[in-house]
Amino acid sequence: MNPRLRQLISRFDSHHIDAFLVTRDVNIRYLTGFPACESWLLVGRKKSFYITDFRYILEARKGLQGIAVKRYEQSVYKTIGEMFARLKAKRLGFDEQHVTLSFFKKLKRENPSIDLRSAKGLVEHLREIKTSEEIRLIKKAIQLNLKVYEYIKGFLKVGMTELQVLERCERFVKDRGAVFSFPPIIASGPNACFPHAKVTTRRLKNNEALLVDLGVELKGYKSDLTRIFFLGRIPRPINNIYNFVAEAQQKAISRIKAGVKACDVDRAARKHLDKNKLGKYFGHSLGHGVGLDIHESPRISLTNPAVLKAGMVITVEPAVYVPQKFGIRIEDMVLVTEKGCEVLSDNWH
Amino acid sequence: MNPRLRQLISRFDSHHIDAFLVTRDVNIRYLTGFPACESWLLVGRKKSFYITDFRYILEARKGLQGIAVKRYEQSVYKTIGEMFARLKAKRLGFDEQHVTLSFFKKLKRENPSIDLRSAKGLVEHLREIKTSEEIRLIKKAIQLNLKVYEYIKGFLKVGMTELQVLERCERFVKDRGAVFSFPPIIASGPNACFPHAKVTTRRLKNNEALLVDLGVELKGYKSDLTRIFFLGRIPRPINNIYNFVAEAQQKAISRIKAGVKACDVDRAARKHLDKNKLGKYFGHSLGHGVGLDIHESPRISLTNPAVLKAGMVITVEPAVYVPQKFGIRIEDMVLVTEKGCEVLSDNWH
Repeated sequence: MNPRLRQLISRFDSHHIDAFLVTRDVNIRYLTGFPACESWLLVGRKKSFYITDFRYILEARKGLQGIAVKRYEQSVYKTIGEMFARLKAKRLGFDEQHVTLSFFKKLKRENPSIDLRSAKGLVEHLREIKTSEEIRLIKKAIQLNLKVYEYIKGFLKVGMTELQVLERCERFVKDRGAVFSFPPIIASGPNACFPHAKVTTRRLKNNEALLVDLGVELKGYKSDLTRIFFLGRIPRPINNIYNFVAEAQQKAISRIKAGVKACDVDRAARKHLDKNKLGKYFGHSLGHGVGLDIHESPRISLTNPAVLKAGMVITVEPAVYVPQKFGIRIEDMVLVTEKGCEVLSDNWH
Repeated sequence: MNPRLRQLISRFDSHHIDAFLVTRDVNIRYLTGFPACESWLLVGRKKSFYITDFRYILEARKGLQGIAVKRYEQSVYKTIGEMFARLKAKRLGFDEQHVTLSFFKKLKRENPSIDLRSAKGLVEHLREIKTSEEIRLIKKAIQLNLKVYEYIKGFLKVGMTELQVLERCERFVKDRGAVFSFPPIIASGPNACFPHAKVTTRRLKNNEALLVDLGVELKGYKSDLTRIFFLGRIPRPINNIYNFVAEAQQKAISRIKAGVKACDVDRAARKHLDKNKLGKYFGHSLGHGVGLDIHESPRISLTNPAVLKAGMVITVEPAVYVPQKFGIRIEDMVLVTEKGCEVLSDNWH
């Protein structure tokens, strides 16, 4: 049995379950290595079943080792019930965050004898701690991401549109066998005051900042970095704010260490912005885990008391958005270690 | 108030609700025209609220007319409750297919006095019947889709890889201001026996079929068409099967008309394949609605007794997949009318 499935099963007792139904494709991919699609993985202590329909059955049989592949016909609920019966188990775990109310009701209705128990974030928690292989893949994505930023630096010119910048980056990324890990944000001047701005045909102007938030994906693993590019002479107030944001990021990074609470890392950055009366312009949380998902556990926010652990890979992205005027965000990715952290994307400031 | 919201409200009584919480972005887009993202729309009889967080609030205020935009801070459940209180309503509808069990439990816990009632597929049913403006947009997407197929015909050559075909198509589509509506399937020879094959670096060979299933999206509206390209001389058995599939499609199309059941349309195609002993190689349903989503209501399947209505736009895509050998699928889009149907993509066979 593969080590990730074994790890999942080792958590069964503490969640009072005998089997677990994985209902999110990306979690199935994590547990099996197979790029699952519209499927369910029923994990028992000794046997697991991958359940999918006609369309995907051939690929699944080819791609999955050591896991029985089961095709469902009319009702996936019935097939889940039949496979569960083979496990001779009583309590079936699932994650209430990853099933619809409708799915839950039907599963229950078709299988009244199964003792269903929600085990929230079970796989997501496993995914928080990256293996060395995962870290290697994330680092490769980050290296390519940084190359995109070097590339942008080289071609950026007043008069280009945001969309033109995007298209060049897309070609660059594709030519290197990768894809964007999310639709990039390329926001010039006042457009950057929208934290999730759409790319427009606005032309880059002199003496303005350009915010680029872009990530790449290689073999499923993602990167997520934000940089600010300056064209021409930068107005002093914008420059000052850039420096405050960079300092806030440093404060947070120097706080990161296994054993520290996520909320305390967020607070370290926020406090620095508050001190400079900029806190009110920083409306989102400081960061998030990155891996197979672009946003994954843990959330680095004021309301998350979870403790950081060695092997987590998180973003640190303080920002200041001044409505109608501009936005500054700096986002790097760090690996949490026992002694502190390793900044994985630090070739810039 | 816009006509779509008005139409939604007109269904409240039959669903025994006084307000409805829209929890799917694409449904919010349909109802408001605003390309919503991570948001909720609370629709009351006289007033509606668009609820989102800090990141999207500025765009939402700019983009939404006649709907109050409300920012939530810590708990969206609390904000939903507060806005619901302003409506002076009792029964709040939601769609159990579009909320997680976790969302439902939290909404209920934070708002014990709200009478929550599931109104399944409420917005999806409205979306089934396309307005003339929607049909215009879908037709535009189909026209571009057909141009891609003409373009492929022109450049296709033995020795090219599937990936090279994909890249050319992507450039073609982008240069015309559109995007793919889903990751295309470009499957040569035996690869086409996987109904949802991944694009590979396999090279096109002589005397083989190439299956291309590709759609484009223009202003949110999508197309979805599948064509088979032949290179060189086609082996007679493959050609025969192609003809059976095309005939099965014709049988189904001639059955389509307002008032006919979806399952009967599916059956018309399936019967023809069965008669030629090919039914067992056709494992999926015959078609689906297309619009803002690539797959939307109604499903054209053996198990769906729903009655077709004028204004529905559906795919008709019979297929035969012979494991390890080849796959033939032909997919067109039709508009259901009172008298029959209009094939929107018919420039081929």
